[in-house]
Amino acid sequence: MTRKALLIGIGPGGPDQLTVEAVRALNEVDVFLVADKEAAAGREGTGDLVALREEICRRHITGNNYRIVTVPDPPRDRAPVADHGYGRQVRDWHAARARAYTDAIVKHTRPDEVLGFLVWGDPSLYDSTIRVVERIRSCGVDLDYQVIPGVSSVQLLAARHRIVLNRIGGPITVTTGRRLGTDVARGADTLVVFLDGCLSCAELPGAGWDIWWGANLGTASEELVAGRLGEVMDAIRAARKRAKAAQGWVMDVYLLRRAAVS
Amino acid sequence: MTRKALLIGIGPGGPDQLTVEAVRALNEVDVFLVADKEAAAGREGTGDLVALREEICRRHITGNNYRIVTVPDPPRDRAPVADHGYGRQVRDWHAARARAYTDAIVKHTRPDEVLGFLVWGDPSLYDSTIRVVERIRSCGVDLDYQVIPGVSSVQLLAARHRIVLNRIGGPITVTTGRRLGTDVARGADTLVVFLDGCLSCAELPGAGWDIWWGANLGTASEELVAGRLGEVMDAIRAARKRAKAAQGWVMDVYLLRRAAVS
Ligand SMILES: C[S@@+](CC[C@H](N)C(=O)[O-])C[C@H]1O[C@@H](n2cnc3c(N)ncnc32)[C@H](O)[C@@H]1O
Ligand SMILES: C[S@@+](CC[C@H](N)C(=O)[O-])C[C@H]1O[C@@H](n2cnc3c(N)ncnc32)[C@H](O)[C@@H]1O
Repeated sequence: MTRKALLIGIGPGGPDQLTVEAVRALNEVDVFLVADKEAAAGREGTGDLVALREEICRRHITGNNYRIVTVPDPPRDRAPVADHGYGRQVRDWHAARARAYTDAIVKHTRPDEVLGFLVWGDPSLYDSTIRVVERIRSCGVDLDYQVIPGVSSVQLLAARHRIVLNRIGGPITVTTGRRLGTDVARGADTLVVFLDGCLSCAELPGAGWDIWWGANLGTASEELVAGRLGEVMDAIRAARKRAKAAQGWVMDVYLLRRAAVS
Repeated sequence: MTRKALLIGIGPGGPDQLTVEAVRALNEVDVFLVADKEAAAGREGTGDLVALREEICRRHITGNNYRIVTVPDPPRDRAPVADHGYGRQVRDWHAARARAYTDAIVKHTRPDEVLGFLVWGDPSLYDSTIRVVERIRSCGVDLDYQVIPGVSSVQLLAARHRIVLNRIGGPITVTTGRRLGTDVARGADTLVVFLDGCLSCAELPGAGWDIWWGANLGTASEELVAGRLGEVMDAIRAARKRAKAAQGWVMDVYLLRRAAVS
């Protein structure tokens, strides 16, 4: 019997940032699979991410006909290993995660139950769920799955700042803090930056960038800053601290654009 | 009195691709402003776009407490004019559109009514609504507005193909058919292409690209094709024709990625 799984984009924060289709999908799920890291996080600080997921379930699922199975999360070695590369390291971690999910599925769910994975933001951007589910299949679990798109954090960023990401007809480079320098060196002048806990934009050579920045978008601790990069970095650092203090965790995303020459 | 407007992302097609927050926003609107081109389109072929908007209103608005005001749409000169440039041409058109909206707002709405603009997909990607509303404000209409994000067509594309847009940790260039050649020449190897009625990808030099393509996503005439670029162009052209024949219009979007060397 082929199992069925739903990978559901729940939006970037805030319990109503998911689509009507996603709400319907939530209601089809029998068992939500949640990484233990997340389940345990309540004791450590990022617990609100878990709290938000629970609120989404409580708020949008009719009745109480679902359960949550937690899956032990393999430790993720963050130290870069020589000859091991970032991509390889991530792939090793995906493989370990897939084995843990496979165990949990086989032990704690029935083949006729619909499995659910809640995906932060949109599953198509810097998220591992699709890759992990593909690996669960290659671990021998007979599984078919469907992906439900969600609003990404960068779209909420743009909405809050009331901006269009692209210049008229122009391109956008979507990237990560790790790659920002390289992409700017290659000539990108409109960049969306995810996964940049270090605010790498502060290191950009030369002046002449505008930034639209946001943290913890959609939550009560949301922070927004916009302006000339050189002039607002301090305000951004302060806002980042406030968000972290208020919420226990901070996630931020931003748009950088080369300022028009004045 | 400051008027209030809501710019609501309704998703890329399909009446349930909008968020719960967007549904709530729809229910706050007194007057929807709709370009006449769209209102008239029912007679011309792209009418389903209008039909979808109407279905979204019918389906998600409780009661009948709203009206629709149509706004004559200025003709958009598509012929490129020397020394006039694409950006400039688009800006002229935004200005003309803003004047038409301003007239309609002043003549046909009361200052205490909440105005609504339904935006296809997400307002932050290749959409003029925010720019037009900014111009309406500079035409002297005292207006405050809020933007509600939506799922973009490219996210539905990724969901249908069950792919992540980026390689692990890698950048994505989001661009248009018009710019595709330039962006590839600049070294982009993962590209999302909007607004490409001509399928410019067929002109790319060299083999070695994979494509994930979709048309009329979210509608009954949805088409999907994926494969090695050189091998699937005919299938894409055929699918594009089918979508257009079935629906009366066709809109398509795709992801291109340099294939792994084999
Ligand atoms: C692993 S990625 C996942 C992105 C997610 N799939 C999306 O569509 O937004 C995590 C990164 O997304 C961004 N992010 C996610 N949620 C956010 C939020 N509520 N506010 C600001 N940034 C957020 C941050 O850049 C964070 O480092
Ligand atoms: C003016 S842009 C608007 C994009 C929109 N704001 C979004 O977020 O998808 C129009 C382009 O979006 C893409 N598009 C919009 N809706 C689509 C759909 N349902 N299926 C495929 N492509 C779509 C096509 O590339 C089309 O040329």
